[in-house]
Amino acid sequence: MPRITFQPENRTVEVSSGTSLLDAASKAGLEIAAPCGGEGACGECRVRVTAGRMDWVARGCLSEQELRDGWALACSSRVTEDATIRLEPARVSAAGQIVTDHIAHHHAFRRAHPEQPLEPPVKKILVKVTPPSLDNAFSDIERLEQALDVANDARVSCGLHVLRELAAVLRGAQPGLVTVSVLRDDERGDVRIIRVEPGDTTARAHGLAIDIGTTTCVAHLVDLVNDVILGTASDYNGQRARGFDIISRINYARAPGRLAELRGLVLNTVNSLVAEVCGRHDVDPAEIDNAALAGNTTMAHLLLGLDPEYIRMEPYTPTVNCPPLLEAGEIGVNVNPHACVAFAPGVGSYVGGDITAGLLQTMLSGDDESVSLFLDFGTNGEVVLGNAEWLMACAASAGPAFEGAGIKCGMRAAAGAIERVSIDARSGKADISVIGGGKPAGVCGSGMIDLLAGLWGAGLLDPSGKLMPDAAPELIMPSPDSSRNLRYLIVPAEEAADGHPITITGQDIMNLLRAKAAVYSACSLMLHSVGLDFDAVSRVYVAGGFGRFLDLDKAVLIGMLPDMPLNHFIYLGNSALAGAHALLVSRAARRKIRELARRLTYFELNADPAYMDEYMAALFLPHTDVRRFPSAAKRLAQRR
Amino acid sequence: MPRITFQPENRTVEVSSGTSLLDAASKAGLEIAAPCGGEGACGECRVRVTAGRMDWVARGCLSEQELRDGWALACSSRVTEDATIRLEPARVSAAGQIVTDHIAHHHAFRRAHPEQPLEPPVKKILVKVTPPSLDNAFSDIERLEQALDVANDARVSCGLHVLRELAAVLRGAQPGLVTVSVLRDDERGDVRIIRVEPGDTTARAHGLAIDIGTTTCVAHLVDLVNDVILGTASDYNGQRARGFDIISRINYARAPGRLAELRGLVLNTVNSLVAEVCGRHDVDPAEIDNAALAGNTTMAHLLLGLDPEYIRMEPYTPTVNCPPLLEAGEIGVNVNPHACVAFAPGVGSYVGGDITAGLLQTMLSGDDESVSLFLDFGTNGEVVLGNAEWLMACAASAGPAFEGAGIKCGMRAAAGAIERVSIDARSGKADISVIGGGKPAGVCGSGMIDLLAGLWGAGLLDPSGKLMPDAAPELIMPSPDSSRNLRYLIVPAEEAADGHPITITGQDIMNLLRAKAAVYSACSLMLHSVGLDFDAVSRVYVAGGFGRFLDLDKAVLIGMLPDMPLNHFIYLGNSALAGAHALLVSRAARRKIRELARRLTYFELNADPAYMDEYMAALFLPHTDVRRFPSAAKRLAQRR
Repeated sequence: MPRITFQPENRTVEVSSGTSLLDAASKAGLEIAAPCGGEGACGECRVRVTAGRMDWVARGCLSEQELRDGWALACSSRVTEDATIRLEPARVSAAGQIVTDHIAHHHAFRRAHPEQPLEPPVKKILVKVTPPSLDNAFSDIERLEQALDVANDARVSCGLHVLRELAAVLRGAQPGLVTVSVLRDDERGDVRIIRVEPGDTTARAHGLAIDIGTTTCVAHLVDLVNDVILGTASDYNGQRARGFDIISRINYARAPGRLAELRGLVLNTVNSLVAEVCGRHDVDPAEIDNAALAGNTTMAHLLLGLDPEYIRMEPYTPTVNCPPLLEAGEIGVNVNPHACVAFAPGVGSYVGGDITAGLLQTMLSGDDESVSLFLDFGTNGEVVLGNAEWLMACAASAGPAFEGAGIKCGMRAAAGAIERVSIDARSGKADISVIGGGKPAGVCGSGMIDLLAGLWGAGLLDPSGKLMPDAAPELIMPSPDSSRNLRYLIVPAEEAADGHPITITGQDIMNLLRAKAAVYSACSLMLHSVGLDFDAVSRVYVAGGFGRFLDLDKAVLIGMLPDMPLNHFIYLGNSALAGAHALLVSRAARRKIRELARRLTYFELNADPAYMDEYMAALFLPHTDVRRFPSAAKRLAQRR
Repeated sequence: MPRITFQPENRTVEVSSGTSLLDAASKAGLEIAAPCGGEGACGECRVRVTAGRMDWVARGCLSEQELRDGWALACSSRVTEDATIRLEPARVSAAGQIVTDHIAHHHAFRRAHPEQPLEPPVKKILVKVTPPSLDNAFSDIERLEQALDVANDARVSCGLHVLRELAAVLRGAQPGLVTVSVLRDDERGDVRIIRVEPGDTTARAHGLAIDIGTTTCVAHLVDLVNDVILGTASDYNGQRARGFDIISRINYARAPGRLAELRGLVLNTVNSLVAEVCGRHDVDPAEIDNAALAGNTTMAHLLLGLDPEYIRMEPYTPTVNCPPLLEAGEIGVNVNPHACVAFAPGVGSYVGGDITAGLLQTMLSGDDESVSLFLDFGTNGEVVLGNAEWLMACAASAGPAFEGAGIKCGMRAAAGAIERVSIDARSGKADISVIGGGKPAGVCGSGMIDLLAGLWGAGLLDPSGKLMPDAAPELIMPSPDSSRNLRYLIVPAEEAADGHPITITGQDIMNLLRAKAAVYSACSLMLHSVGLDFDAVSRVYVAGGFGRFLDLDKAVLIGMLPDMPLNHFIYLGNSALAGAHALLVSRAARRKIRELARRLTYFELNADPAYMDEYMAALFLPHTDVRRFPSAAKRLAQRR
């Protein structure tokens, strides 16, 4: 069998000829991100073949020159002989753990539950319907029901739209041979017929997994037959112009007509994403019978047109935590109007379906008794603590700083975003890398963490987060808007996409520190409440829309994450989206998420008077109690 | 206790003071028709108090003069002392059996099933929802579900429209006190929430029972709280202009756009009836959460927009026999768009929901082992034979003659219709009575039967149904359109509503004979097929849109009904409408009708070569084999 060696990790595996390079890397314990689902479309999985050669089944987006230079797409390359592969360092996280890779996340759920076959809740079934005859007086729908072979006490249902087409569909070119899209109810075995098509169309079935974020919405188009993410589209939530955080949206919705406006804005966003990603892959949205959505409780209310007012007011009561299965047309999502749309269930006003969806990717959804932490630095900032026995959650009101909202130079992790930054210790200058490789337009979450860590490591910030102009007078100067608000020049005007300098201000930095402090202090208080500390935690899952590559070292350095061995951290990226994907393709995931929502108890941070003290202490870099961050302090000393 | 004597029957009953006259009559075995539901609105139940006096609770539509003359409304009169009441003879049928009275029919179902409490499938429930608090983190819908108190394994569901109003409704003037309209699933205990209103609105709930006939549509508006029919509206089915019978409608529907046109026409009719009857009783159609419909299989297909093509073509396969519960908005019925609409289930292309609904009014839905016949002379002509053990049905293709279609002078039983006719034996002239008492505009079904029997009895017809001009030369003369088509003058031009003479032609008479022959021969063949004859039948239920008062004697005289003792007949009138009413107000009726639909087997008349001979013999007056009609022959001999 050919031997493949991966550099710089210097790991070697033997795999059989024809194995894809992605699978070979996985066997070596290295997960390579392939966001487009292995279609050769995005180029994210490019590697360099430095010895030996690969067979490639698709050239994908690589140019002739790149092919000659030895570049290959891991997704589209097949092992034929011994070879050495060089991975870009950023492709694999320091500890070899999962980098932000939605495929990997989805697989994570399946790895955690290997006993569960992959089975989409909405599935196409090929059936042969008995022809009508004078001896068989059953109606068309009765004969179709008989062909579906459901349990005796189970029921089959369908809407008028199915009945209206049925006579013609059953009498197509191959009479009686039809493909039925069905939604199965696990508990009762009931079957809902969503669509009936003439002939065999089972080779083609698509679904959508959508993360309805307060700041950003992201949609995966999934090939349900081959279990592949065909493509992804993302954009700001159109409601963003009506308030950055959920409280401002709820306030906005109070005036007449405004709830409908907010609903329309997010529907526009979602429908644009659907049109975009379907258009790219030649899928007619009307073909799509299956969608799964994850979003926080306020986002779910606004999308469904439910009054969010009482989410904001004590005692913080939403209309619904677990929206029922709905038809896409009822919601306003432009796919098959009778498509089945599932929502990730929430737990309360401030622990929503985005969190339960995220938990699906973690051992918190498994049967492990060791304690895990799940930190979601989304627009709010939620923390879940627990194990297979107990689960508690709290909302930390972190704000959407790491998603770029409320930060002057902030932007989502899209083309043009600075995703990696290092600060030269002597000059204080920023060395950046930009998504897509062009001129930078702003900084995404991972870049901000790098930036804070870099400025702090290089001595341009004091422990309270204040910029120190004397350390780099050419780079740190007063903002044009206020002389008391200093700013650091990341990219000069002439190198920026829009011709304006990219800077971070003292206020921006304070917003970032507030966000990290809210989550850290929530963790520490919640652990304290159950008589544990960070030592008791065996895994920390980190979720949030930071971008593709989160540098965990740097997140610890600024006190955003607790100071623990790096191999305790698992970076999930957009775990709400990955959870929605799991709900789309797995009935087991739907059962599991309902169980998670039932098991989660809500922990009210503000009920504990110690919270404010914890929070104030965590506003510092990394913390007022430096003993909590021994390795960070050591590394800092080394750098300086 | 006061004693009440009814004349001319001379029956006396003792009832307690305060009893309504309707109930007193019922106790005497006399059913008085009260179509308006006892509201004093229609005047149909007027009687004359000839001795003693009544207390009247409502004067209703009676004038001062009528009150002084001793007229009273049975529905609104209360017994206070001994009295003698004179019933109009036509109010009660000869044998004391039920006359056409929708209330009575509905009560017939309840009398047959006294163990079943009256319980509408859609019902308003007053609940007190626990207020939200920091200690009660349940969402609004969860707390509402808890208040509904359903079984553990049952489910509660609702649509988005309920969720959208819920927060506000729960926080009304009496927080937490709400009225919920729920549909309960008998088998599983599941509850579907249709509407939630603030406060207690349980005192007001309305429903609609609608008969979708091929020729005529009729709607009852029902007060579900007090179990009273508030009013009735009827009109021709708007599709009538596109073909009188179902085959011509199906043919019409074959061209593009025509199915939608037919659907629109019947929806217009139904929605006009709804608007009319609701308007009359100050009910907003949007209040209505509950409707039940009965119609034949083709009517159900056309109303739902289902292709009827395969109903017409061998092997005669409908898309659906038992339409699922649907929302009114899906169908297009203008009530609450989320109202639950139930259809009476059909058995096959030619035995539809109108028949199963009709059977609800008969002992065929009970546990009686004696054999009954059910004859529906609707637009088609269906016959059901059986008992508690077995049930078989056939379709006789009778055509809509008795509903007035295809008959020049025919009309539905509405104001202006001649409903009773007697022919003077000497002069041959017709003596008529007209619904509403004005000038006549046409003849309804009961009038046509009277007319045929009168002409035959007076010797103006020969046994083959041909008019004999010599018997009354001034009344029988050639039609203006064809000298070979004779016609009989019922009403001269100057006495008719539109100034044109009302006549019946030889062709009209043949159409009527074909209709009666189809049903009679179907009965006789079906009995023969199970080795029985008419002697084995203990009851014959007669249904159809003839009008209010069917003279059974005359129907036997012309051979339309078998020659049996008159007390074997029970005239049901519009039994499909009465069945829809039962479905509206009784969960037991819904269970029963599903059972009936399962039990009914279809008998194919045309498969039996004897059918055509039977049919040809039955085309005669009363039949070629006069021995089958001994009492009719005797009466005929007496008359002549």
